[in-house]
Amino acid sequence: MNVALDDERFRQRFEALNEIGATERGGVNRPSLSAANKEARDKLVTWFADAGLDVVVDEMGNIFGRRDGTDDSLAPVMVGSHVDSQYNGGRFDGVIGVLAGLELIETLNDRDVRTERPIEVVSWSNEEGVRFQPDMLGSGVFAGRFDTEYAHSLEDKEGETFGEELRRIGYEGETPCEPRSLHCYFELHVEQGPYLDEADLSVGVVEGVYGFSWLNAAFEGSADHAGPTPMHLRYDALVATSDVVQAVRRIAGTGSEDLVGTVGSLDVRPNSINVIPERVEFTVDFRSYDNAVVEAAVERVGREIEWAAEREGVEWECEEIMRLDADPFADECIETVERAAERVVGEDGYARLVSGAGHDANYLNKICPTGMVFVPSVDGISHVEEEYTEWDDVVAGANVLAHAVVEKAGGK
Amino acid sequence: MNVALDDERFRQRFEALNEIGATERGGVNRPSLSAANKEARDKLVTWFADAGLDVVVDEMGNIFGRRDGTDDSLAPVMVGSHVDSQYNGGRFDGVIGVLAGLELIETLNDRDVRTERPIEVVSWSNEEGVRFQPDMLGSGVFAGRFDTEYAHSLEDKEGETFGEELRRIGYEGETPCEPRSLHCYFELHVEQGPYLDEADLSVGVVEGVYGFSWLNAAFEGSADHAGPTPMHLRYDALVATSDVVQAVRRIAGTGSEDLVGTVGSLDVRPNSINVIPERVEFTVDFRSYDNAVVEAAVERVGREIEWAAEREGVEWECEEIMRLDADPFADECIETVERAAERVVGEDGYARLVSGAGHDANYLNKICPTGMVFVPSVDGISHVEEEYTEWDDVVAGANVLAHAVVEKAGGK
Repeated sequence: MNVALDDERFRQRFEALNEIGATERGGVNRPSLSAANKEARDKLVTWFADAGLDVVVDEMGNIFGRRDGTDDSLAPVMVGSHVDSQYNGGRFDGVIGVLAGLELIETLNDRDVRTERPIEVVSWSNEEGVRFQPDMLGSGVFAGRFDTEYAHSLEDKEGETFGEELRRIGYEGETPCEPRSLHCYFELHVEQGPYLDEADLSVGVVEGVYGFSWLNAAFEGSADHAGPTPMHLRYDALVATSDVVQAVRRIAGTGSEDLVGTVGSLDVRPNSINVIPERVEFTVDFRSYDNAVVEAAVERVGREIEWAAEREGVEWECEEIMRLDADPFADECIETVERAAERVVGEDGYARLVSGAGHDANYLNKICPTGMVFVPSVDGISHVEEEYTEWDDVVAGANVLAHAVVEKAGGK
Repeated sequence: MNVALDDERFRQRFEALNEIGATERGGVNRPSLSAANKEARDKLVTWFADAGLDVVVDEMGNIFGRRDGTDDSLAPVMVGSHVDSQYNGGRFDGVIGVLAGLELIETLNDRDVRTERPIEVVSWSNEEGVRFQPDMLGSGVFAGRFDTEYAHSLEDKEGETFGEELRRIGYEGETPCEPRSLHCYFELHVEQGPYLDEADLSVGVVEGVYGFSWLNAAFEGSADHAGPTPMHLRYDALVATSDVVQAVRRIAGTGSEDLVGTVGSLDVRPNSINVIPERVEFTVDFRSYDNAVVEAAVERVGREIEWAAEREGVEWECEEIMRLDADPFADECIETVERAAERVVGEDGYARLVSGAGHDANYLNKICPTGMVFVPSVDGISHVEEEYTEWDDVVAGANVLAHAVVEKAGGK
């Protein structure tokens, strides 16, 4: 079957959803469990129901829309992504994956096509992890990586818990969030890196996702007046931290061809122009497709943190808050996506690549064969309001996704 | 006349004032124009009035208490400091200078001593500058460095202005805040550095104050996803900033014997674990008793900022928001304080020294002969809750101050 989505309807829904939480600079501000996130969920639930899907919200707030197959005893094919955003993030990240799934359902409805297997479209809770860490929380619980109680107990900086906030916006469902039998899972997403854009390709066939480690680290020295404290009596947490920022850059530059390293978050206390920084808390993010490379980077930066602390005479802390191994997708799904890509954009229109960013697909890959379709991020930019993908590329990617899903669901 | 203050009354007032805004770790949190700062002002005004002082609040919220002399046509001797604090600051910083002035008045009253010149005790507004920059704002306007309109228009991080907040707490007086004729000004303060404590001395005779420069600087690069963005396509504002933090340390270590340099405040945007820092705003503070050394340090760090920006491919901003020259006090006041110190603690109990921190006395020194008395900061620690001075040293310093004021005011 040749599936071609309704470009215009898809586009209208994309625009309508992104009016919610729209920012002045052209992005969206729809962090997980915010008012804007609730509004986007409400819209999605309406659209799912209008498309004839059976809507189920689970106890993590994941939203599923199910379309029956001709044989409902078979495990469903699942397709989706997320509609929460970074603070002042981009319009494409996550949204296109959910709406492409919905658009596929509408197209099957329009053509009165039945598939053998049920198809479920999903929107995962808290993929971005900006207010509640860890990220990919909804899919993580669904795949059995975390339990619901733990996820509900997570606190944001104001001490509000995920569970309370989920109830407040009315999205704590009664269906347990736990692993269940799926035939396979597909996700369309923006690449969030420069590869496809630089190579002038429309579609990426994702072979797997980088492994990564997240560290929370801190130095604690002595706050003191910046004027009368001579240099030899300083225990400056920020000077020690600056050593580590430089070390992370150096480690990333020499650890392997693909290793990347970032200090993304840094908070200084008391953060006053004339007081020596007493405490600095900061994060480190290392990623590679080679688990041993990530491990070596974590060990190296651990030593650098100790050395920086000794050099400056300050105390140090370092805790790994997250580690995911590199995650190769199932060959059968990679091949399915590749066949679909060849059909939609031809062999010169796509390439195989590895994802530097984590996705809900990582967790799904733990419980069923999983595949991903990427579309280009112009200039590789993501997680910011300037994030952009040409609409033709979004449509190409959505059509690749549709072909892959229909093949696996047994569409005639 | 030999003045000896009432140690017990002085101590009780010190304790009572520091109950206001007291923190669990033994400090005070009484930033300028906070509820706690208003309460401390109220208490001070009551005490001033009870001591028979004529209380005047000017349009900057500076509080003056005047005791007439036998010849009120003569310019007054002024004495004081401040009662605002750093966020979670120390109990001694500022407070002892105001209360020592008040205690002197009470002692003169007790003994029915008249001075030839009027004496004014003052509590200056917004010395610390933690919520509204620049610091030393009340004395700065009084000395003609800033005008009142400018000071009232200053905004805190929430966009509240100094003028609105001053009115809100009821401390915008009608008396113009402007230079007027003063015979001289004295201020007792904690050293905030290690010199007196290390030398085991009770009192410091301050010869002058370091000059300093304050810079607001920023780098702006590209926020991007920390995973899929390869190292060669990063424009990381925090990596550039870490170069400058290291440069400030290096410059301070090699600029002169007394140069100190600090990056005290640093804010990252978007400050998310998996996003490359797009913008970092930070401050630089350089101080020395040699103006040329400060100037050279500012020039050096300016070049370092440019180089760091070029290295990382980011934009840079740098603005000097404050520059004060090194400020030698008037010889006649230094000598008056030294005579008083010799009388109170003997020649082995004090030393001459230079202040690394700025004080309201700096601005007063622009409009009248000025002197300062220091007492030790244990371990040189200040601007934090652990700030401590032995009470005997506070009393010794207050007695030195009293002798200096009475000599200049023509006490019999």
